[in-house]
Amino acid sequence: MATAGKVIKCKAAVAWEAGKPLSMEEVEVAPPQAMEVRVKILFTSLCHTDVYFWEAKGQTPMFPRIFGHEAGGIVESVGEGVTELAPGDHVLPVFTGECKECPHRKSAESNMCDLLRINTDRGVMIGDGKSRFSIDGKPIYHFVGTSTFSEYTVVHVGCVAKINPEAPLDKVCVLSCGISTGLGASINVAKPPKGSTVAIFGLGAVGLAAAEGARIAGASRIIGVDLNASRFEEARKFGCTEFVNPKDHTKPVQQVLAEMTNGGVDRSVECTGNVNAMIQAFECVHDGWGVAVLVGVPHKDAEFKTHPMNFLNERTLKGTFFGNFKPRTDLPNVVEMYMRKELEVEKFITHSVPFSEINKAFDLMAKGEGIRCIIRMEN
Amino acid sequence: MATAGKVIKCKAAVAWEAGKPLSMEEVEVAPPQAMEVRVKILFTSLCHTDVYFWEAKGQTPMFPRIFGHEAGGIVESVGEGVTELAPGDHVLPVFTGECKECPHRKSAESNMCDLLRINTDRGVMIGDGKSRFSIDGKPIYHFVGTSTFSEYTVVHVGCVAKINPEAPLDKVCVLSCGISTGLGASINVAKPPKGSTVAIFGLGAVGLAAAEGARIAGASRIIGVDLNASRFEEARKFGCTEFVNPKDHTKPVQQVLAEMTNGGVDRSVECTGNVNAMIQAFECVHDGWGVAVLVGVPHKDAEFKTHPMNFLNERTLKGTFFGNFKPRTDLPNVVEMYMRKELEVEKFITHSVPFSEINKAFDLMAKGEGIRCIIRMEN
Repeated sequence: MATAGKVIKCKAAVAWEAGKPLSMEEVEVAPPQAMEVRVKILFTSLCHTDVYFWEAKGQTPMFPRIFGHEAGGIVESVGEGVTELAPGDHVLPVFTGECKECPHRKSAESNMCDLLRINTDRGVMIGDGKSRFSIDGKPIYHFVGTSTFSEYTVVHVGCVAKINPEAPLDKVCVLSCGISTGLGASINVAKPPKGSTVAIFGLGAVGLAAAEGARIAGASRIIGVDLNASRFEEARKFGCTEFVNPKDHTKPVQQVLAEMTNGGVDRSVECTGNVNAMIQAFECVHDGWGVAVLVGVPHKDAEFKTHPMNFLNERTLKGTFFGNFKPRTDLPNVVEMYMRKELEVEKFITHSVPFSEINKAFDLMAKGEGIRCIIRMEN
Repeated sequence: MATAGKVIKCKAAVAWEAGKPLSMEEVEVAPPQAMEVRVKILFTSLCHTDVYFWEAKGQTPMFPRIFGHEAGGIVESVGEGVTELAPGDHVLPVFTGECKECPHRKSAESNMCDLLRINTDRGVMIGDGKSRFSIDGKPIYHFVGTSTFSEYTVVHVGCVAKINPEAPLDKVCVLSCGISTGLGASINVAKPPKGSTVAIFGLGAVGLAAAEGARIAGASRIIGVDLNASRFEEARKFGCTEFVNPKDHTKPVQQVLAEMTNGGVDRSVECTGNVNAMIQAFECVHDGWGVAVLVGVPHKDAEFKTHPMNFLNERTLKGTFFGNFKPRTDLPNVVEMYMRKELEVEKFITHSVPFSEINKAFDLMAKGEGIRCIIRMEN
């Protein structure tokens, strides 16, 4: 492309301060360096993790910064050494990477990466420790290596999944974070057997995707657990068959679930990040064969506590990160699940706004309205 | 047999009081009732669990009682409804059962049993709530449904494994508890891949059997962790290749092991029951794919604590009970592993005494000498 090797000037939504509305600015995006690609973002969406670091409560604030990590786009140009991607490729940038060289590549299960593991404290590119974004020569920080709230962004090649060019980017863009996280937690990690009973803790986007994954895996009872009963009706669309609101019971949720299921659920997936819900999700699985999977990100001072006999009675507790999908290897296949209509993505998308109105997406999330809001970069 | 249906008078080692030497007595053993078998015990051995309940520190004392649960014998007679066993069958009585009717039978993994799960507080038969042992008409309590410190005992059919009659009972008797527990923890639950690194916490009989299991599974590095360095040399016979004594380090053991193994071991098996060792065993496994297995029985007030991020980074924690072997279905195959010389049992047997000297076995265990002491009932 004509822009290859040159600085691109484009619009980006810049967060200048913690918790303040994003400001639409003209930024300069430097060309990709070795092992990097520059991507033209077409659609992005807002995830709780963006909001969490934008609010910067409890972490070191890093501003000015360009947030955004759920997105779909097209490769504009590639840096030195990039052979797997070329301009024109349709891609999903991902907040975690797959270098394909560290020991995790050998594991059928792990999708961690020693080089490109998520780092929320790093605001620069890993190659040279510099930002590719600037305004009047002053750097703007990156976020989790993606920074998709910009018309163009630069991403390490290890954090870019090349997908089927037929896939509609305005839909599959949501697969680059939360939806895949929940889906994979069920299908890759909890692996509920056909006909089994699964409890899902937390019915936000990730939990609903976990329910969808349990449904796809063939679970016959999917029990949604949430403190907010207004989410229950919507959750039926994602496979939930029953609901428990802990507020409606004086007994511990573990006991309520055990009584509903003749001793415990076969699988549970925890999608809230609240440590008490994690403990409940573990203790509610059946002895002998029950498996609990932790997905939600805990508070930094959280402590998971349980009596070790709960393990000795043959319960399993696992955690997952990005649903155990390897970003480059597996994410294209998740897109294919959508293309084959095995996975329905549309029902996760409840809102859509033009890029100029990106702050509306923040407002919707603050109000707890909807599941995913697509931000359209071009109109 | 001529004794079928009649009371048998025989010798038994009776514990009259907590912590006092067993006393050799003539007891009356009632005939087996429905779904029970009477077994002539030929060899038994002493396990820590016998000693723990004989000392009765921290549990409700139940005396007089006949202890013993690792043993091999021959069926003398069977009660009503018993079709799978007949007089003359060679068997191993087991402290936990397999009713083959509860939901656990359907699980490929679970060996728990709703009916015959271990119950250390029950001193009577499950069928009629009575003891089959008496002296002068006064009942003597059973222990975990086995009470093998008697020339004859009565056991529920669900707690009896029928084994190859060619197998030497003086060797395979040790397979009915600790050795299978450790072996199964490795081969059935931790399942170390070939060439992997395994840490074993606690080098008693169970830990050594776990090391043996790791060796059989093809682990290439097996790191024994124990506070007692005198166990290290012996442990080499069971596959241990390296050792860590936490007393030799100022750093936490998790960190010592991570440094030895480029980030963590692939598998760990905890065989001490100490809750701090459990936490160490979990936290020392590699992120992305590490699996920790808890085997040792914790204190009733123990609390397992860890930061939930240790799970989120894709570590798995499982517990096991009797190595996940289903007593009736799987134990005969463990005996076959011995017969095929895949599993060496002899090296676990360090001492042997006649039944009349059973208290010597308690003395050896109190001193921490040896691994297993066989008690010969007939000479």
